[in-house]
Amino acid sequence: MDELINHLKSQGFIFQGSEIYGGLANSWDYGPLGVELKNKLKKAWWDHFVRNNPLNVGLDSSIILNPKVWQASGHIDGFNDPLIDCKNCHSRWRADKLIEEFDSSINSGIMNEKDIKDFIYKNQIKCPKCGSCDYTEIRKFALMFKTNQGVLEDSASSVYLRPETAQGIFINFKNIQRSLRKKLPFGVGQIGKSFRNEITPGNFIFRTREFEQMELEFFFNENDENDWYKYWVNEVDWFLQNVIKIKKENYRIREHEQDELAHYSKATSDIEFKFPFGWGELWGIAHRGNFDLTVHKELSKEDLTYLNPIDNTKIIPSVIEPSVGVERLILALLCQAYEEEKIDESNSRIVMKLPNNIVPYQIAIMPLQKQQSEEANKLFKDLIVDFDATYDETGNIGKRYRRQDAIGTPLVITCDFDSQEDNSVTVRFRDSMNQERVSKDKLKDFLKFNLA
Amino acid sequence: MDELINHLKSQGFIFQGSEIYGGLANSWDYGPLGVELKNKLKKAWWDHFVRNNPLNVGLDSSIILNPKVWQASGHIDGFNDPLIDCKNCHSRWRADKLIEEFDSSINSGIMNEKDIKDFIYKNQIKCPKCGSCDYTEIRKFALMFKTNQGVLEDSASSVYLRPETAQGIFINFKNIQRSLRKKLPFGVGQIGKSFRNEITPGNFIFRTREFEQMELEFFFNENDENDWYKYWVNEVDWFLQNVIKIKKENYRIREHEQDELAHYSKATSDIEFKFPFGWGELWGIAHRGNFDLTVHKELSKEDLTYLNPIDNTKIIPSVIEPSVGVERLILALLCQAYEEEKIDESNSRIVMKLPNNIVPYQIAIMPLQKQQSEEANKLFKDLIVDFDATYDETGNIGKRYRRQDAIGTPLVITCDFDSQEDNSVTVRFRDSMNQERVSKDKLKDFLKFNLA
Ligand SMILES: [Zn+2]
Ligand SMILES: [Zn+2]
Repeated sequence: MDELINHLKSQGFIFQGSEIYGGLANSWDYGPLGVELKNKLKKAWWDHFVRNNPLNVGLDSSIILNPKVWQASGHIDGFNDPLIDCKNCHSRWRADKLIEEFDSSINSGIMNEKDIKDFIYKNQIKCPKCGSCDYTEIRKFALMFKTNQGVLEDSASSVYLRPETAQGIFINFKNIQRSLRKKLPFGVGQIGKSFRNEITPGNFIFRTREFEQMELEFFFNENDENDWYKYWVNEVDWFLQNVIKIKKENYRIREHEQDELAHYSKATSDIEFKFPFGWGELWGIAHRGNFDLTVHKELSKEDLTYLNPIDNTKIIPSVIEPSVGVERLILALLCQAYEEEKIDESNSRIVMKLPNNIVPYQIAIMPLQKQQSEEANKLFKDLIVDFDATYDETGNIGKRYRRQDAIGTPLVITCDFDSQEDNSVTVRFRDSMNQERVSKDKLKDFLKFNLA
Repeated sequence: MDELINHLKSQGFIFQGSEIYGGLANSWDYGPLGVELKNKLKKAWWDHFVRNNPLNVGLDSSIILNPKVWQASGHIDGFNDPLIDCKNCHSRWRADKLIEEFDSSINSGIMNEKDIKDFIYKNQIKCPKCGSCDYTEIRKFALMFKTNQGVLEDSASSVYLRPETAQGIFINFKNIQRSLRKKLPFGVGQIGKSFRNEITPGNFIFRTREFEQMELEFFFNENDENDWYKYWVNEVDWFLQNVIKIKKENYRIREHEQDELAHYSKATSDIEFKFPFGWGELWGIAHRGNFDLTVHKELSKEDLTYLNPIDNTKIIPSVIEPSVGVERLILALLCQAYEEEKIDESNSRIVMKLPNNIVPYQIAIMPLQKQQSEEANKLFKDLIVDFDATYDETGNIGKRYRRQDAIGTPLVITCDFDSQEDNSVTVRFRDSMNQERVSKDKLKDFLKFNLA
């Protein structure tokens, strides 16, 4: 993992956040190559889950919402971690994690504070730092970031940074349904920043306090005979395998047991990826029943029902929610793509085997030597119209090939001594390192074919 | 303006934020059509200022940065508004705005607190609400949103939501320059959310507390003979006119006077747009000298200099900053596009004359009557691969044309009685309302040509 992090920094993918000031907790900034990767991944998700699915539409709601939203959703009262301090060494721990590390078969997420404390003392779970077993009471630590809005610093103006994008969709359900004259079933997708004041962010970009979500809320009539839960689990599976090319052996789908489910949820699946630090949650698909619209209807007193045009009954739609973090998906892609490959006895290369639709650059154009600079530059200007392209003329050709391998560029095009004579260029393939001579007249079609 | 706001709500462009809970200050959410508009505008900016400019690269830095960033930039000490309370009616005002409304020729932005107060009493500027002239002392009101990060709620963990994306670029200058082996001059572009706790947000999406910026920081050697300031003013002008088609008569470029400039700035231009409520700032292009990298170098003690490869001297690059808000640009586009057009004596239509590259949908496909549904649907599935398309079969054809006019769709394609026989469809143009019969074989080329 450290090697990957260093590689990503040196190549301009991901930098430590606020690095010149010693960083800030576990925050990360996306450099020139990282932002291209991120934008392509977001576009792939948007195309698949919003643009190309005739049932779905998009949304971009605010990060700061009326606090009543979080009251209705239960986040103000219920979205917190149980913290406990060691009285001996004053270190602070998540009480539920102490239990899970003690016995991973126990689901501490459903235990109340008293049960947690009793379990810790009964089993004499020791402070991981000093080994004593003498703790303070459990305190609930809110996971939402709180700030003040407006000119008065009183509690009336307290607002929160959203811990999920989903609620922005629920509160806009009626406006979207009405203005687009949508009939059930339909989905609303959204991409945007969320914030959680995690006690222990970590594992590089796997868990950060500021992160980006891609969430779809799919609304349907519970009497609908289609199994929409199954449908969306399959769609996510298909997206992972066929759109962003996550290998089947690197992930697994885990269906939650009955006692793991939130009280309103009818079913939930986690898609887990095999990260270097172990299996970690990548994507959640939850059947949320009609919980969300019901609680907002009750608190807002607004009519959030849907008038079924077939039998003129008013219903509160049920919801399937496939939800994924952009950074986790990027981490999965990077972990899978990063390879140190032995070329022969004395040579090796670092190569990022990213899928063609997610790479920062699809092609690189280079002159073999300075003499071909003008020709290569002209070709670059012609190709950048249709392809994501970069130009490189510094250092020897072998070094430049390694550089493109290191950032995942699938195809490198070189203008050489013969190019002017035979009107052809050399195309080199990242994965096989094979080279092929291609006529300039057929170059665009050749590239399109090999990048598809 | 109210008409426009209602129209945008009813058509699914922009909804009041947290509407079901009575809203939240002046916040707005972007519905299914609004988010498409926003994404296209952002893509147009990114393509022009980042992707297609060989000098520039992109970045995506965090919203929450180490607080020292804001100490260095001067935001913690200097980014605030002077507030004053009327002792008689207890209403609260921005003291500098009271002066500007009293005499618009005065630049109160450069006055200190004492000068502001003296000026108000000397000129007996009255409370706009009750007419008295008896005020409290001026209090500085910080414009940055403050929150706490981590498990301890003490001042050490205070962090801020960024009030601008620019600082994220400055603190990553060295990482970007090194990892991409960039030579001066080069620019770094970024799109992202910023937050300012404005005292008086308003004018629809013109001034909101949560907003999105598109900023470019262009680094260069001050001895460079090119006039990069002029270059970027021209680029912005060109983008407005030629890429997103803002009419020349709707905006003006205003060069700041010497006494309006920040102490470090060598020159600044504001591009102002003629909004329904008057001329308002749209885009700022500032020559910031080497102020930014200098202050971060001093506080961080990191070497933020650039080694000039020509003469081996170390310099601190100068910066030109073209900075624009996404929402303001969208408001300008919508204001310019919205028209209520008289068709004949008794008929009128609402039409959104948005440019072809910024519309939510480029084309709509419809069957004239239910009989052509299958055929139209097949055509839709074929065209959605290459065009942003919508499908509509509800209501009569006239009503459906009006609907597409109202959301700005430039071309509507209708399958009718003859379509199966002559293998042709009718294409209707939004602006002229003319119709043309086009063979299906030539349809894609016809559409591409007319959307270019
Ligand atoms: Zn301890
Ligand atoms: Zn008053």
